[in-house]
Amino acid sequence: MRSPVRTGALRGLPPSTPAPLQAGTKGLRDCAPRRLPVPPSSGFHSTSPECSEALATTAKLPEAEPVPPVPPRERFTIADIKERRAKAGRLVAPTAAYCDADMFKGPTTGKPKAKRWDHHLTTESALRAPCKLKQAAKHLKTPGLISLGGGLPCPEYFPISSLTLHIPTPPDFSETATLAAGEDAPIGKYDASFPSLEGSEYDLSIALNYGQATGSAQMTRFVTEHVELIGAPPYADWGVCLTIGSTGALEQILRMVCDGVGRKDSLLTEEFSFSTALETAAPLGVNVVGVKMDGEGLVPGVMDRILTGWDERERGGRRKPHVLYTVPSGQNPTGATQSVERRRAIYEVARRHDVLVVEDEPYYYLQMQEPGTEAPGSVEEFLEGLVPTYLSMDVDGRVVRMDSFSKVVVPGSRMGWITASAQLVERFIRHAEVANQGPSGFSQVILHKLLDERWGHEGYLRWLMNLRMEYTKRRDIMAAACEDFLPREVVSWKPPQAGMFQWLKVNHELHPYASTKGILDIEEEIFNSCISKGVLVARGSWFRAQQDIPPSGLYFRATFAAATPENMREAIRRLGEAIRESYQL
Amino acid sequence: MRSPVRTGALRGLPPSTPAPLQAGTKGLRDCAPRRLPVPPSSGFHSTSPECSEALATTAKLPEAEPVPPVPPRERFTIADIKERRAKAGRLVAPTAAYCDADMFKGPTTGKPKAKRWDHHLTTESALRAPCKLKQAAKHLKTPGLISLGGGLPCPEYFPISSLTLHIPTPPDFSETATLAAGEDAPIGKYDASFPSLEGSEYDLSIALNYGQATGSAQMTRFVTEHVELIGAPPYADWGVCLTIGSTGALEQILRMVCDGVGRKDSLLTEEFSFSTALETAAPLGVNVVGVKMDGEGLVPGVMDRILTGWDERERGGRRKPHVLYTVPSGQNPTGATQSVERRRAIYEVARRHDVLVVEDEPYYYLQMQEPGTEAPGSVEEFLEGLVPTYLSMDVDGRVVRMDSFSKVVVPGSRMGWITASAQLVERFIRHAEVANQGPSGFSQVILHKLLDERWGHEGYLRWLMNLRMEYTKRRDIMAAACEDFLPREVVSWKPPQAGMFQWLKVNHELHPYASTKGILDIEEEIFNSCISKGVLVARGSWFRAQQDIPPSGLYFRATFAAATPENMREAIRRLGEAIRESYQL
Repeated sequence: MRSPVRTGALRGLPPSTPAPLQAGTKGLRDCAPRRLPVPPSSGFHSTSPECSEALATTAKLPEAEPVPPVPPRERFTIADIKERRAKAGRLVAPTAAYCDADMFKGPTTGKPKAKRWDHHLTTESALRAPCKLKQAAKHLKTPGLISLGGGLPCPEYFPISSLTLHIPTPPDFSETATLAAGEDAPIGKYDASFPSLEGSEYDLSIALNYGQATGSAQMTRFVTEHVELIGAPPYADWGVCLTIGSTGALEQILRMVCDGVGRKDSLLTEEFSFSTALETAAPLGVNVVGVKMDGEGLVPGVMDRILTGWDERERGGRRKPHVLYTVPSGQNPTGATQSVERRRAIYEVARRHDVLVVEDEPYYYLQMQEPGTEAPGSVEEFLEGLVPTYLSMDVDGRVVRMDSFSKVVVPGSRMGWITASAQLVERFIRHAEVANQGPSGFSQVILHKLLDERWGHEGYLRWLMNLRMEYTKRRDIMAAACEDFLPREVVSWKPPQAGMFQWLKVNHELHPYASTKGILDIEEEIFNSCISKGVLVARGSWFRAQQDIPPSGLYFRATFAAATPENMREAIRRLGEAIRESYQL
Repeated sequence: MRSPVRTGALRGLPPSTPAPLQAGTKGLRDCAPRRLPVPPSSGFHSTSPECSEALATTAKLPEAEPVPPVPPRERFTIADIKERRAKAGRLVAPTAAYCDADMFKGPTTGKPKAKRWDHHLTTESALRAPCKLKQAAKHLKTPGLISLGGGLPCPEYFPISSLTLHIPTPPDFSETATLAAGEDAPIGKYDASFPSLEGSEYDLSIALNYGQATGSAQMTRFVTEHVELIGAPPYADWGVCLTIGSTGALEQILRMVCDGVGRKDSLLTEEFSFSTALETAAPLGVNVVGVKMDGEGLVPGVMDRILTGWDERERGGRRKPHVLYTVPSGQNPTGATQSVERRRAIYEVARRHDVLVVEDEPYYYLQMQEPGTEAPGSVEEFLEGLVPTYLSMDVDGRVVRMDSFSKVVVPGSRMGWITASAQLVERFIRHAEVANQGPSGFSQVILHKLLDERWGHEGYLRWLMNLRMEYTKRRDIMAAACEDFLPREVVSWKPPQAGMFQWLKVNHELHPYASTKGILDIEEEIFNSCISKGVLVARGSWFRAQQDIPPSGLYFRATFAAATPENMREAIRRLGEAIRESYQL
């Protein structure tokens, strides 16, 4: 067995903790993380007495079941992966070829297997049988076999003979540089049949036909390796499955483990959560339970108290929650980023209460550069500086991580992937077979050409490094606009460490009509005033996890992802004007 | 109001029936359909006494509720659509623009509205609320508005500056002609911002960003017009929504109208049905009820009798079925095609029993040319020759039609659309918002460039005309191979009139071990023998709608879509050999 290089090993452990060496662990070393100091509670999140108390320390958690330490994050390097590919030789994966992550993973010898989650599966998920026609594809490996099986059209009838991308050449990713000096990347219909000519392992004849619901072997290899570069799970039997973005993935995951009607399941999430996620859960009858947040996001002590004190009778017969949905980095809408200590604490609460963790990380790579700090010079430094993922600390296999190309390549790809234990991935695939049959072949072959074949892992990571600097600039422009145009006497905010969103708290109590006008009424008044002044912001109430309890404050979410710098300033100026008018300032 | 040209008006009515003129109907004329004579019952489908009796005539249907006549099919022409587009001017539909079919439809003045289906919706579907963030997009129309609303990335960060297709130029669609004389079709990032230069109404900056779950306005216009060319519904308020192919659409439709657990809903379908459709229904607890078939597919008299005699107590508390799933043309797996008379009869049974009809038509355009008949010379003749759709006779709005680009352009597009009443389309969109957010932008912009901008409706219909002739050739090659290599003494078959599949009946009773070996055992023996001889066929039992009743016969499905002519012959030879060996012939 080859020994993977393990980096960032002692991250998050107290200085006195000895390194928890595992079987087969070699080359353990401590790399000082290039991370930001954990900010104090920002003061713009609600801080009820319950919350403040819970915040104080995670040592207050009940100690009934001791939680073993989370092992160090483990990462392979780009050199490891290059070597592995060279050894494996050319990837031959024709139309609808079966694949899984194990075909592309590095060694996992000596690692334990993930726990089983049968008791969490819904009846719907447990009932899923493999797709008979997809299963029949296993016979296609038989040498000389002629298939009259699946109704796969002949690629002769695909009316596109080639598709040529014009793309940036690293390291200059700008639009102007791409126009002047980018490269053409053609994708032919039968490239993979002519390895000597083009060398490509994927082509239109494969990508544009039916495939397995997992996604193509070509893209599966790429995302498997990418997961290993960021930090693979510490158990052996993890897998991946391509998704129709995290939107589609979340719906599939909820149907897999949450039965809102029969079992009266609930879902834990941040008190303010991505509105579309809430809209996904609601029609399934899944009861959403919001957990208080502070400047670092969800507060683990509050989560623990909710679970410890859960009483089904008091909760209308609702079962104790067994699933947490969380956006750990640049949370939508609050922009909060959980530190590694926070993640560990939340993970430990999840272990104690047998809770699965759905880690939704569209903004993971949009972790910002702090003012006055030096940007990472190398890909390795960049990776070191990222907050470790839940996945990388998941000793049990209880995390389902959702990654997406939407925020970091293009939303229109409608493509992402999940990483989780083989058991959960298998159930997920069974659903994907009847829900979508995997992402668009156009999306797959285009992203493969760009990310795998042309850029490679190094180029893609450099793209992400470039992108986070762009978003850092945008965040700073918005922060300056807020400083310049918002009335500080009623509005408070903190520039986020990651993501696309600036969360703004407006002090409701200082409103001249606070005693007679509710929070939602004032929110609506300001929102409408904004529209008439020519700025669209998102209302904080759209993101309230529990619409059945009174709002805890008056908030707005503003994105710095889309508008030009000039427009961003003008928009914030208009927002400030709307607030001033409402508050009669 | 412009009067649409109505064609094929009297199709399917007895000669003595007067034309049922509707308000606003002008230019009614009878065009002799270029269709095939309805074949007699082919003899290879099961013909139980119940079935034979029901077959005799549809006049035996109970007459409790008189069913009004179905109005004539109505079609617009390509000239109508060109004129309409010219009047409307350039389509300006920027990022995430809201759209619906009404924006692109021809006049529907004087037509009734569809019926309401609230009583058929599931609780899940009824509970769906609009996506708050997508709804906010309506404000984007406000002139001068700056959006800090949705987290849409700036297209500056899309790492593809252009995408160039190489595509066939009609009328020669062959691969060799395309390589020699096809055309390049570039798609730039900002084409739509420079109308004077390129003239394109769609580009990468729009397609690769987030969009509405309906799909883009650009593709919505194309499919809306396409529906009108084939035959729009006879009610006013129909709509469309792009889908992740019919796979994804069916799952969404089932969740919209079938509650297998709470309401104990059932689904009617052909006795042999698409296995993936069955696998979609099963985990939802939806009970599938197979309806006997003959050479023209599902037998309406049997369907009527099942519904008339439905007894909830006898059926384990299962509610009387209110949804029919049918593949009317080139049915999968039997290859059967319902004649227009058959469709009318089934539709009337559906009306009588308040049944919604899910019309799954992936093979609709693969209707074959019969030997000795002349191929249509014009697009109009081609359209005339197609069997009318359920949609075109749907006076109530009870049909949900699923179309797909998978079989006629590329499966990898993972794109199709539904057409149905506005009420059902609206509920479907609400689900799409959280299930997928519409098809891949790559798929949309590429198919738009090809089908709409380069080929136009005329070119696309010519492509379909070409494709059906290709499939006709393939069907004939397989038919000849069957004649040459299959033992007629035990195997019977009839070349299909549409689709991709040859259905083969093997007479179980003639098997030397028929008295001791079950149908499924013999099927397995022959299947395994086929694999060892190097041919993969699909087992008939995979497609049995009801696995809980004994199999009615021994069948295999062979596709003529994929293999080369030589391989197809060799594969059928191997299949013949496997059958002969099992039957000791």
